[in-house]
Amino acid sequence: MSSDRLIYLPLGGAGEVGMNAYVYGYGKPGKERLILVDLGVTFPDMDTTPGVDLIFPDIQWLVDNRDRLEAVFITHAHEDHVGAVGHYYERLGAPIYARAFTANIARGKMAEHGHPEKAVRTVSAWPETTHAGPFSVAFVPISHSIPESSGLVLDTPAGRVVHSADYKIDHHPVVGEAFDEALWAEVGQPGVRALVCDSTNVFNTHPGRSESSLSDDIGRLVTGCNGMFVATTFASNIARVKTLAEAGQRAGRSVCLLGRAMRRMIEAAVETGVLRDFPKMVTPEDTRNIPRENLMLIVTGSQGERRAASAQLAQGKYQGITMKAGDMFLFSSKTIPGNERGVIRVMNQFSELGVDVVDDSDGLYHVSGHANRPDLEAFQNILKPQTVVPMHGEHRHLREHVNLCESRGIRGVLAPNGTMVDLAAEPPQVVEYVDTGRTYLDGSVQIGALDGIVRDRIRMALNGHVLVNVILDEENEPLGDPWCEVMGLPETGASRAPLVDVLEEDLSQYMGRAGRKTLGDDHKLEEGLRKVARQTGMSEIGKKPEVTVIISRLTE
Amino acid sequence: MSSDRLIYLPLGGAGEVGMNAYVYGYGKPGKERLILVDLGVTFPDMDTTPGVDLIFPDIQWLVDNRDRLEAVFITHAHEDHVGAVGHYYERLGAPIYARAFTANIARGKMAEHGHPEKAVRTVSAWPETTHAGPFSVAFVPISHSIPESSGLVLDTPAGRVVHSADYKIDHHPVVGEAFDEALWAEVGQPGVRALVCDSTNVFNTHPGRSESSLSDDIGRLVTGCNGMFVATTFASNIARVKTLAEAGQRAGRSVCLLGRAMRRMIEAAVETGVLRDFPKMVTPEDTRNIPRENLMLIVTGSQGERRAASAQLAQGKYQGITMKAGDMFLFSSKTIPGNERGVIRVMNQFSELGVDVVDDSDGLYHVSGHANRPDLEAFQNILKPQTVVPMHGEHRHLREHVNLCESRGIRGVLAPNGTMVDLAAEPPQVVEYVDTGRTYLDGSVQIGALDGIVRDRIRMALNGHVLVNVILDEENEPLGDPWCEVMGLPETGASRAPLVDVLEEDLSQYMGRAGRKTLGDDHKLEEGLRKVARQTGMSEIGKKPEVTVIISRLTE
Repeated sequence: MSSDRLIYLPLGGAGEVGMNAYVYGYGKPGKERLILVDLGVTFPDMDTTPGVDLIFPDIQWLVDNRDRLEAVFITHAHEDHVGAVGHYYERLGAPIYARAFTANIARGKMAEHGHPEKAVRTVSAWPETTHAGPFSVAFVPISHSIPESSGLVLDTPAGRVVHSADYKIDHHPVVGEAFDEALWAEVGQPGVRALVCDSTNVFNTHPGRSESSLSDDIGRLVTGCNGMFVATTFASNIARVKTLAEAGQRAGRSVCLLGRAMRRMIEAAVETGVLRDFPKMVTPEDTRNIPRENLMLIVTGSQGERRAASAQLAQGKYQGITMKAGDMFLFSSKTIPGNERGVIRVMNQFSELGVDVVDDSDGLYHVSGHANRPDLEAFQNILKPQTVVPMHGEHRHLREHVNLCESRGIRGVLAPNGTMVDLAAEPPQVVEYVDTGRTYLDGSVQIGALDGIVRDRIRMALNGHVLVNVILDEENEPLGDPWCEVMGLPETGASRAPLVDVLEEDLSQYMGRAGRKTLGDDHKLEEGLRKVARQTGMSEIGKKPEVTVIISRLTE
Repeated sequence: MSSDRLIYLPLGGAGEVGMNAYVYGYGKPGKERLILVDLGVTFPDMDTTPGVDLIFPDIQWLVDNRDRLEAVFITHAHEDHVGAVGHYYERLGAPIYARAFTANIARGKMAEHGHPEKAVRTVSAWPETTHAGPFSVAFVPISHSIPESSGLVLDTPAGRVVHSADYKIDHHPVVGEAFDEALWAEVGQPGVRALVCDSTNVFNTHPGRSESSLSDDIGRLVTGCNGMFVATTFASNIARVKTLAEAGQRAGRSVCLLGRAMRRMIEAAVETGVLRDFPKMVTPEDTRNIPRENLMLIVTGSQGERRAASAQLAQGKYQGITMKAGDMFLFSSKTIPGNERGVIRVMNQFSELGVDVVDDSDGLYHVSGHANRPDLEAFQNILKPQTVVPMHGEHRHLREHVNLCESRGIRGVLAPNGTMVDLAAEPPQVVEYVDTGRTYLDGSVQIGALDGIVRDRIRMALNGHVLVNVILDEENEPLGDPWCEVMGLPETGASRAPLVDVLEEDLSQYMGRAGRKTLGDDHKLEEGLRKVARQTGMSEIGKKPEVTVIISRLTE
């Protein structure tokens, strides 16, 4: 019997779909040698994170323990798994391991930050293993919606842990490796202490569909279109891009890729040999000399992103190409919750242009990359894990996944972000809660989600901003009247006079009746002026604005 | 032959789902006597309208022609049809006609604004007609998701127009009038020149389902729950509230309504005799003495609204009631596009409490109130209109509805907001385009969507706000150094010094090198300071903040 622990600690991804970062450790309590699996980002929204560029998991715990960190392993090249490697490399300093395609993308991210590309080390798939402290790590190919996605087999003195990564069971994934049941049965053979498993689609009770099932329906759609055919999908879904391109080719259309992210992904797939026999592309310039009924575009922007190719086309023009009545636009994608408004805006703009828009509402033109409930069960049946720890999901997904396990007589452990579980204990137990959270990339600066910076921006967006400026002389006597500027507020309110005039009048009256003690005390004076400005806001325009007071004192 | 026109002019609702406002007119061109059908609101979102309270259609055209306006007719009591009557009554001044339940709700809105309740006149259903200038208007009961929804039959010298209002074909609507095919056939008998028709569900190819189809499935869910059962739906869906309450009653549960909007609606339904045999309710206080397995709550907040009962329960407590493991929460509703984030947040909060959440993803616990494609076709078959003008939908819905008509050999006219169509012409033709848009209620002030006020707030939310303050003496010499305050920006950037210090240093240097001409010119000085502050922002924190410059000049 040993007191060594085998810990699992999600810092991100267990409580949201995004910013995956899972710590594993093995050793004496508090002295475990650590590895990190995935280091991704999530995306901001106007509701909670206006002006933020990217969101990372808060990895302070790991930074505090970086001397114990052996390596970072990246399971696949989706942004929510690899997106933060460049931003966080300096703070962690550990080598990064990935398979060729993922490593290619990771190196690009490192280069953007001036980090050494050689810090990213390319490994081969199972049975090759990488030793990282007490861990022996193998990348086992698993089907998903991006090439070379891999589950990780983590062997430790306390036994084997399988980290599923994002996966589905697809025997014909079009590009990359099929789900190989025999291989996974081999992985399960010695016994699996714990399966840490994707939970995204646990509420979907239908068996998952294969990527290869889309080709015929997409082909029919392309053939039936009399104008230009344009399709969007996730840039990293190489198989889908291939399916779309081949449908275009079969219909006698020249195919053009639009959008930097998509070109980058295809380039990486070609460079690493993942993608072969890809139809020859034409450039945006070439398209000018090709009749539109012989053209197909495959473009970025499946989520309605304002700057992506699809949104630009919907607004009229992109790289010299315009769409018009008779053309067709296909969303070969699903709309990620929260992006509905953007996607619908693009659809309506296309409608105004007379372009026919087709989406996946009939289930014909997109398949998910994640395992539905029956495929979660199938994977459990193959691996026969002693314990399942759901990850990669919101709280409701993790909880439902635990319920699913327990209904099948398998132990499930609910471990949202910050929950440190000792998988070596029998049964596994929660040994610690670690502070986790979010770090924002705001412009070029990393800020904490709780720093109050974004909260202040949200307040200005909701309430507007009033600036109050007063000047006092050496005797604490006001020099002139208070001066206001407003931003984001109506020009006039209840009294029909300009809001600024009413504010200045009320503030001026306040200054007139303020005692010497208040006028001599910056803090008191500021509070008094702020209160008056907010009251005036309420009575004039029915809202209390944010107020910034600037007090200047002349001292000569 | 006459030169009189029969015009249709949507000011809102034809290009969005929301803020319905449809003008009809009859008479000599430019002198038509007018009626308005519906006067609704739509709701703001953080992406485009932060801090805005409500959104109305811009009715300036109608205000400019208010001397021609005979009356306002409200088809039903949904907010997107009746929500603006109180806010706009003064600007229009016309009497408002509605059936009893709708009128009850409309009077409440008038009272909130201190307007005379008697301006709202209660009318009875078909065959009663109201004369308004050249129009004879009848309210014909039609099934929807609120009581007493009515299609309008508008008889004019140029023939009959049917304004469908929001509708579905439901022969067993639980509360209120069933869809009556014989009655509608009678309406169609004299010939229908134009059907102006709901388009919301045109993309849904399945036949619509009846409200009454839900009772069994909801009943099973309630019976299967061992803890407290809580359900949310749209506050105005009286039939659903009844179905839910009866399911609770059958299961031996005491039923309690939570949420002001829902209580108000039920009250109106009881007062107007629309709702009878409603199970007896208990108060929130009563619930303390009732075992949770004998309790059912029906609550507001189906869209995840932050202040509604469901969100408050999800956060822990509402009116002394808490939910916990073993309880069940049902969304007997659909999530309106754009509200996904809010609804998912509530679901995850319930998950953290251990509450089981059930939604309509399996199609068992909610039915839509709008006509699907087959029901649009059925209504056309009954009325046999010469022309269909799609309304109540986004552009893509209107366009698809026109396509549907044309595929069936019926003339369809695409007329988004601002399109004035002469329905008396043969064929109907667009005679004018009128400026339309949105008016925001911001606090207590109505502002134009294009006034730039909300745009400024969005900019502050995205970019933060820097305030620059400089004081110059009578000689245009700076008195001291420039002074900055920042709001919504990181405290430190690239140089690791406080951002405010770096800004002040750079601005101070600028002041030092500025010539007398610049120092003497407010506009030049402001532009110079703004440019420096933005450049410093870019180099320090990677973003260009909004900048407000305050220049104070001492003159004695």
